[in-house]
Amino acid sequence: MPGPVHVFIACSLDGFIAGPDDDLSWLPTDDGENYGFDAFLAGIGAIVMGRNTYAVVEGFGGNWPYGEVPVLVATTRPLGSPAHPAVRAVRGTAHELLHQAHAITGEGVYVDGGDVIRQFLDAGLIDELTVTVVPVILGAGAPLFAGARHRRSLELVDSKAFDGGLVQLRYVPAQI
Amino acid sequence: MPGPVHVFIACSLDGFIAGPDDDLSWLPTDDGENYGFDAFLAGIGAIVMGRNTYAVVEGFGGNWPYGEVPVLVATTRPLGSPAHPAVRAVRGTAHELLHQAHAITGEGVYVDGGDVIRQFLDAGLIDELTVTVVPVILGAGAPLFAGARHRRSLELVDSKAFDGGLVQLRYVPAQI
Repeated sequence: MPGPVHVFIACSLDGFIAGPDDDLSWLPTDDGENYGFDAFLAGIGAIVMGRNTYAVVEGFGGNWPYGEVPVLVATTRPLGSPAHPAVRAVRGTAHELLHQAHAITGEGVYVDGGDVIRQFLDAGLIDELTVTVVPVILGAGAPLFAGARHRRSLELVDSKAFDGGLVQLRYVPAQI
Repeated sequence: MPGPVHVFIACSLDGFIAGPDDDLSWLPTDDGENYGFDAFLAGIGAIVMGRNTYAVVEGFGGNWPYGEVPVLVATTRPLGSPAHPAVRAVRGTAHELLHQAHAITGEGVYVDGGDVIRQFLDAGLIDELTVTVVPVILGAGAPLFAGARHRRSLELVDSKAFDGGLVQLRYVPAQI
């Protein structure tokens, strides 16, 4: 059975995943456990991410956050020299991208990047969403889910407040 | 000493306070305590709201939600026949609107409506924000805080999950 598809993302209180000009300086520094990200990543067998998100992560330099987990970058342009051996370029619809991820792993698939998340959401392919709300108002930037086309009702599975005022909300799609 | 200025608002997970065409059908029905709104309103001595928000509330018909609390509607156009005797039209900057509210009451002031909230935020006049996150993705609509011009760091005071999957987050502006 193919593994579940996860979103794990941080946003401002007003729903932006990046400020103007891809500003991420408002993201908190690591609390020692990366706000649950390390534990989350342990259950992930493949990552599908958008080209813009990859460019941001590539900019982290030597600080590659995904260990040896295969990273499929959805792009129609060549990647050049990949930032890590686990990176490869892929293309296709959300269903096709997921098919490629499921060919690699039976574990969870982590989908990241505003556009890619929206495409997976619109295709009904997301099984679980973890959204960590950072205590800041940005006013402008890249919106969470970047204009999903359909209203989606969710069920709250868990909520957890961290020191520093972050609140992590975990949802699954509502049963219709 | 003038009363504190509050925001108390619901939004979708993706940060919209209304869907396309002012759609509010995604808001949950009352849980019996209005998700804390009734208790909140008991500490409020005046309400400042935008014209659009007033038009929506006016549309509720006989279901006036604010009791006898004075409601100052920020507008440059005449109100016509007010929906309730407690309603009056006002105009001015955020500071001027707040001055008028403080002339009425020493209790809390409740500021509502995307544009008015943004103006108060940008003027640094908000003392406390209660945002109730409804478990739904809308994809489009009226954004929370409608484009605040400045980044604002917040401190989380409280978070609370309700049956039905709503999560209420309470913030104060971060001390600089």
